Formats: sequence, structure tokens, C-alpha cells
Amino acid sequence: MTRSFSVQAGGILDSFIMQLAEEGSKPGMISFATGLPDSSLFDLEGLAGSAREIVLRSGKEILQYGSTAGYYPLRERLAGYCRRKLGFDASPENIILTNGSQECFDLVGRLFLNRGDLMAVENPGYLGAKQCFSAYGPRFKGVDIGPGGIDVPGLEALVKEGAALFYSIPNHQNPSGYSYSDQVRRETASIISGSDCVLVEDDAYGELGFSGRAGRTMKSMAPDNIIFTGSFSKILSPAMRIGWMAVPGWMAGQAVKTLEASSLQPGTLCQAIAEDYLSKTDYGAYVRRLRKVYRGKMEIFTDLMEDYLKDYVTWNIPDGGMFIWMKSPEGTDAMRIYRSCIEKGLAVMPGEPFHISGGKNTIRLNFATPSEEQMRAGMKILRSACQESDPRAKSGL
Amino acid sequence: MTRSFSVQAGGILDSFIMQLAEEGSKPGMISFATGLPDSSLFDLEGLAGSAREIVLRSGKEILQYGSTAGYYPLRERLAGYCRRKLGFDASPENIILTNGSQECFDLVGRLFLNRGDLMAVENPGYLGAKQCFSAYGPRFKGVDIGPGGIDVPGLEALVKEGAALFYSIPNHQNPSGYSYSDQVRRETASIISGSDCVLVEDDAYGELGFSGRAGRTMKSMAPDNIIFTGSFSKILSPAMRIGWMAVPGWMAGQAVKTLEASSLQPGTLCQAIAEDYLSKTDYGAYVRRLRKVYRGKMEIFTDLMEDYLKDYVTWNIPDGGMFIWMKSPEGTDAMRIYRSCIEKGLAVMPGEPFHISGGKNTIRLNFATPSEEQMRAGMKILRSACQESDPRAKSGL
Repeated sequence: MTRSFSVQAGGILDSFIMQLAEEGSKPGMISFATGLPDSSLFDLEGLAGSAREIVLRSGKEILQYGSTAGYYPLRERLAGYCRRKLGFDASPENIILTNGSQECFDLVGRLFLNRGDLMAVENPGYLGAKQCFSAYGPRFKGVDIGPGGIDVPGLEALVKEGAALFYSIPNHQNPSGYSYSDQVRRETASIISGSDCVLVEDDAYGELGFSGRAGRTMKSMAPDNIIFTGSFSKILSPAMRIGWMAVPGWMAGQAVKTLEASSLQPGTLCQAIAEDYLSKTDYGAYVRRLRKVYRGKMEIFTDLMEDYLKDYVTWNIPDGGMFIWMKSPEGTDAMRIYRSCIEKGLAVMPGEPFHISGGKNTIRLNFATPSEEQMRAGMKILRSACQESDPRAKSGL
Repeated sequence: MTRSFSVQAGGILDSFIMQLAEEGSKPGMISFATGLPDSSLFDLEGLAGSAREIVLRSGKEILQYGSTAGYYPLRERLAGYCRRKLGFDASPENIILTNGSQECFDLVGRLFLNRGDLMAVENPGYLGAKQCFSAYGPRFKGVDIGPGGIDVPGLEALVKEGAALFYSIPNHQNPSGYSYSDQVRRETASIISGSDCVLVEDDAYGELGFSGRAGRTMKSMAPDNIIFTGSFSKILSPAMRIGWMAVPGWMAGQAVKTLEASSLQPGTLCQAIAEDYLSKTDYGAYVRRLRKVYRGKMEIFTDLMEDYLKDYVTWNIPDGGMFIWMKSPEGTDAMRIYRSCIEKGLAVMPGEPFHISGGKNTIRLNFATPSEEQMRAGMKILRSACQESDPRAKSGL
């Protein structure tokens, strides 16, 4: 049998993400490519204990069907977190738990995108979210992002043009590592507020600011137009698939009904495990440890870049998250560096697929996953690949 | 802010399912309404033990990101199960694990339905699946189902008319409890084979046949045109959200890419817990116990129906699953019985929402969830509601 696939399936963007995850996991391959957190930071004993205890303590109802919006005690906890730490009002009724934040993006696309709608995305921007939204057939247009955040007039023009959605990661962005300045946050919220555009504020890395949160949430400035999305994947464990979103009241009912249609309910057992774990954990201390470890890894990584790469490429020093944004000289093709690295045993993530336009000379590097030894060995490969690809490089250097 | 929702979100069917789950869980309310398994059958100790052990034994990689198609050892187990027990060839590459089988239906809709496509569904048929598919805007047409299965010529006509999909539950169907006869299975597979129609064979209740499986899988007769879907929700625990599908090779690549876009990956931690549990369990004995308990509950339930309801309504004796299909006299409105029951403290599921056409005099009853005491108390309420609604009933009866 050969059957053609639907328009929406045919229109889904290709993604390097899973392909690279596989390439990066081949024996002997070093990976700076993925978006994986450092698994050595996961609290194996703590989560194993909570997994057993919550099942025994809660009884069989914890294994039964639950509600579409997720495990209520965790929704309560997150609503309190929104009010106390994120600066915006929320009740459990505004909090929807999902199977990872990818399901939040799918829900938002389903709720708001008709085929052909204009959608604003950061340029470069997170490929996984764009792949998700692409199933709904929007016309993506890019808003350039740099070290202080997005090009605000660029966003303003797209909102005026009728953009239905704007997807943003204001803290330690994937792929660039850039964070929005306070002024950019205020201006972005002001543009969105009162418009017909819904902003998705993806906070996947918000907890991983090396000096605490990088800035105020935009959700606190334009609550009615903003869907705030969070995830435990970078904090507790991605395999638990716990994403969440804080939605304005006017969309909560339709959001839950739409989610019921696509997945009935999320994984309430893992949500209950997480809630048990969080109730026993000093979350502040836990997160400070993650920040400290990631900052240390970033410093080692960028020191090695300084040692090995400074003659060939430039990069930024991020204030949190997991990523460094590397640029080879203007006019060069970083895909050559990528291919050369793969041949030599290092996976890196080419930057061009994250772009609506441009970015041929960019590469995303993840400093969170590799060990120090892997960083050193990988950096040698990366230098060699940069040398080969650099038109200015002297032979024999 | 008020923003209109998208065409696909606006087109999603209403569902009584979650609403009734909530009504049924109000204090003091007895429920014959839901599709919940009997939670007293869940193996609390066993699952709690596996949850702890798999995390400690597998180490931190079990908490890390996994693959879009799910936890490989469980895919291997299910492929073997397909070959040995379900009669069709499958390798782990044909098996895709999902967040519950609802995600399978969403994936199938996304892969194959363009807005306006013709889609065949059983009449009556499972409302949750129709709600899921409705987001993709098909024109549903019904194939009547009775005690021996579907009206085969009805299906044949729809396939000739160009149906893109046919969604079926051949074993102990939801809502009717009916199973397809062997002849209907063969004829259905023959119609589908070589056509452009993809059949979804939903096996949610296939393991719960009181005398074993009710018949051969249609997947074994027309493997290239059939997506077989299974679920651990009725076997181990719904809160673990483990659904799975066996797909023909020609669609596996596109299916995984499409699923990556919508959810990145399923809940591999719960999949690993299930795999550990299954590796330690005599699955045959486990399932035989479920069958025995459900058969016993069905017998008690239908004995009570005989005692209380035989003057007012008719029903079938199912050969497995969780449901009994009750009919009030032709021309009566079972919604009156439903509303009367709710007022008196019993939730039942009206049958009309499961229908494309007809079914005003039908009600779905779940015998798997209530205790014997609840059955007895609920049956009294149901009799009283039937009496009130029966135009033939004598006053004072």
C-alpha cells in the first residue's frame, strides 16, 4: 500500500534534533550538539524513593485516570510559584500540566493557528517549537535576536501585519544563549498588550540563570495576552515528561477541551512523583546547585574555546542555560565545520536550521552535557574542523 | 483580550467523558458512566517496587531524554507479543509507544486526514476517538454495529466512496460491548486490503475477553492497511499513559517524524517501569485474573439488571470488556433516564453522543468500576428513572 500523507503531515519541518541525538549517542562520539541536561545532576535516589512512596501512600487512585489539566496538587504548587517567584497572578485553574512543554506548543498551535496565518518567531529560534507549529501551516516570519534580545521594531511590524502568535524564549535562548534586556521585555510586552497577538513565553531555561532569573517575566506585564510555559525536563528529568503552562482565564476552558481531544490527560503518575519529590526538597538549594554546576561547565568550556578556537571563530558568554552560539567568519559555511566534526567523532549543531534567514556561519554548542574530558577532546576536533574550513587559515597552523 | 480560536479548535466535538468523570466523582455519587477500570485490581506493591528499582538499577540515563518511538526494551517486548499472540509480523521498528492510545488516534488523524475527508466510524462508536479525529475536520459517516459486528456492506460503500480512514474496536466495543464475528473480521479485512483506506484496529479491550481473545486480529489479515493500537490503561494503570501502535513499515518514518513534532517523545520513565514490572510478572496469569474478576462483576451486574430492569429495558450480555449496552423502548428518550439518574445520585452515560445517527434510546453502563454494593444501590436508582421515563409504565408500579 502507498497512501499519501495529509497536508499538515507533509508540511512538518525537518528537524536535526532527534537525528543528532542519535548520531551523538553512537559509541565513541562526543556530543556538543544536543539540548540534553547533564544527567549526572539527576537525583536518582530521591526520585526513586518518591516513585515508590507516592504509589504506596496515595493508594490505587494515583494509578487511575485523572483530569485533563493534570495532577491537582502540582497545579496548586505551580500556581503558588507563579505568584511568589514569577510575579503574575495564577490559580490552579490557570495551570495546565502537559506531557512535556512540546505538548504546550502543539496545543497553542492547535488553538490559534489557521493555515496561512502569520506567526512571528525569533531568528534564530528554537527548531523543535517551529517544527511543532509547522504542522498547523503558519507563514513564519523572523524577528532577529541579538545579545540584548529581539529587534523590537521588527516584532512591532509583524504584530501590525497581523501576526497570530509570537514564540519567544527570553531567558538564555535556544539556540543562541541570549537573554532579553529589561527594556526589551517591557517594550515587547507593551507591543503585545492590547494587540490580537498571543505571545508564548517559553521559560525552559529560566531557572538556570547563573545569577538567578535573568529578568522579569513578560507574563507579569501583559498577562492577558501571554501563555507562559515551563518544564521540569531541565530541572528534574526529561523522561518524566512534565511540562506546564499558565494560561489567561479566557482561554482555559477551550485549552482543556482541546487537550482532552488530543491526549485525554497527561501522565499524572509522574506528576505525583514530582510533587512528592518537590514537597521534600529544598527547591532553592537544588536549583542553586544546578546553576553552579552549569556555570562551572560553561566557564571550563569557554576557557577551552579561548585556548583552541580564538583564531577562527567568535562566541558569546551566556548568563545561563546550556548553549553557546559560535560564529565562523561572515561568508563561511558552518555546515562544512559540522560535517568535518562528524567525520572526526564530534557532533555539533549547525545554526542555519534555526533560522528563517541567514545564519550560515553559526553553530550551537551545548556545554551542559559533556564532561571536562569530552570538552577537551571535542575542542581539539572542533579546532581542526575550523582550521580546515577557514579560508584565512594558514596551512600548517 | 478576546481572540477567536482556530478552525480546528472550534470544530472539536464536545465530549461527555471528562464531564461525566467529574460528575461521577462527586461525593456520594454512584457511577456506571465512565470507562474507568477497577482500580482495586492495580498492583500497587508491584508497580511501586518496579518504579523504585528501575530507576536505581538503570542509573541516570533512564531519567534522560529518550527516543521519539519510546523505550526500546518495551518496543521489543510488544513486537514479540504481536508475533506470538496477535498473529502478525512486527519488529521493534514497527512499534511506536505513545502517551496513551489517544495520542495514537491523534497521530493517525494528523497523518491521514485533510479537512473534509470522508472517515468511516462505527455507529455507535467510541466518542473519545471521534473527538480526537474531529480536530482534523473529517466528514464522519457511520457504519452500523450490532451484536455480530459492523454492517459490512455499509463499510464497503464508504470505502468505495473514498473513506480515508475507518476506526474500529472489534473486541468488546466501546460503547456497545459488541465483538465482531470471525466472518465480519475476514470481510472487513478483505474490503480494506488493496483499498486506499487505512483501518485503525483499536484493541483497548482485546485482553479482557472473558474466554480469551474474541477473535483473530484484522491486522493479521491485512497488515499493510491496518494500524493496530493497544494500551496498558485497562491492564496496568491509566495514569502511566502507555499506549502503543503497530504500524506498517511504509508509514513508520513519517509517523515518528510527525510524533516528534507534536510531543518530542513519550514518557519513557513510566515505560521503563512497565517493562520492569512485566519482566517480573506472569502476564498470562495476571490477565486471567482481570478477566475472571470482570466476568464476575458483569454477571452480578446483569443479574441485578434482570432483577430490577427487565420490565423496562433490554441489554446485551458482553463477552468481555467493561460495558453493557442498554436500550429503552423504541421511541423513548434515554436522555430523560440520564437526567433523572443524575438527580438521584447515579451517573450513567447516554448513548446518543456515541452515534452519527439514531441511538436516542440507548445508554452505556460500565460494570467494571462499581462495587457490588454500588451496583445494587445504583440499580435501584436506574429502575426508578426507567419507570418515570417509560410511557408504558403503570402509575404506582
